[in-house]
Amino acid sequence: MQRITNCFLHNTKDVLLLQKPSRNWWVPPGGKMESGESVREAVLREYREETGLTLLDPLLRGVFTFLVMGDEDLFSEWMMFSFEARSSRGTILEESPEGKLEHVPVERTAGLPMAEGDRTIFRHVLEDTGVLYGTFHYDRDFNLLHSHFDKEEL
Amino acid sequence: MQRITNCFLHNTKDVLLLQKPSRNWWVPPGGKMESGESVREAVLREYREETGLTLLDPLLRGVFTFLVMGDEDLFSEWMMFSFEARSSRGTILEESPEGKLEHVPVERTAGLPMAEGDRTIFRHVLEDTGVLYGTFHYDRDFNLLHSHFDKEEL
Repeated sequence: MQRITNCFLHNTKDVLLLQKPSRNWWVPPGGKMESGESVREAVLREYREETGLTLLDPLLRGVFTFLVMGDEDLFSEWMMFSFEARSSRGTILEESPEGKLEHVPVERTAGLPMAEGDRTIFRHVLEDTGVLYGTFHYDRDFNLLHSHFDKEEL
Repeated sequence: MQRITNCFLHNTKDVLLLQKPSRNWWVPPGGKMESGESVREAVLREYREETGLTLLDPLLRGVFTFLVMGDEDLFSEWMMFSFEARSSRGTILEESPEGKLEHVPVERTAGLPMAEGDRTIFRHVLEDTGVLYGTFHYDRDFNLLHSHFDKEEL
């Protein structure tokens, strides 16, 4: 089962995002967990590889189940672990191997092209507190079919 | 990939644990995530099935990678999501389908038979705060080979 980790590195003004060349969709930098890693090790490694930056004190803010539905059956299932960090060290890469890196003003993120379900994750991490749990059902063209959520109450 | 969820339901005095008949090891009640569930839905369902109790406001306290090593290679890998809850509703089952349920005084948990690596998880959830991340390497007889951890700093 594929497991994806990513992180929203942001301050009160803007958030560091990556525009992927495939669909021009914007995502928080991250990538696939490798065998034997913890989710925290995976997000630190992937973030460093994609941005050059080492996250300081990333906090887990969301755990999600993604289901890609085929014509009749489940086509694939994966999990995503979304972190938040307020600071990092190191120097940002001029070119990321995965796409275009940009500090985007937080208030502009709602208008960016992205996977439809990611909008809920962006709003939760950038505007809310606690851990969000949820399940997203997509079709194979990555159209969102439905989703549901539960929020951890602290 | 197998994904296990469990929960430490406890107050200041004791914690509800399950003694599994296979090795007489003690564990927090829980079980396997099913396809399409979020981790929170899985822990609520599994806890209800094993104890009769519905957890109120479970908080995620640990995300772990388990590696079972064969003679030369990795034999299997799974993940575990450990929650904590302070209250529940419903009536506890007189007999659990999975083993013996018991309210164990927190100070007695350190002396219980259990998987060696679980002692770290017990101490973290029952005595500490925040989210713990870690990786455990076991052999196929479930002897702990090594482990390492990172703690989320709030």
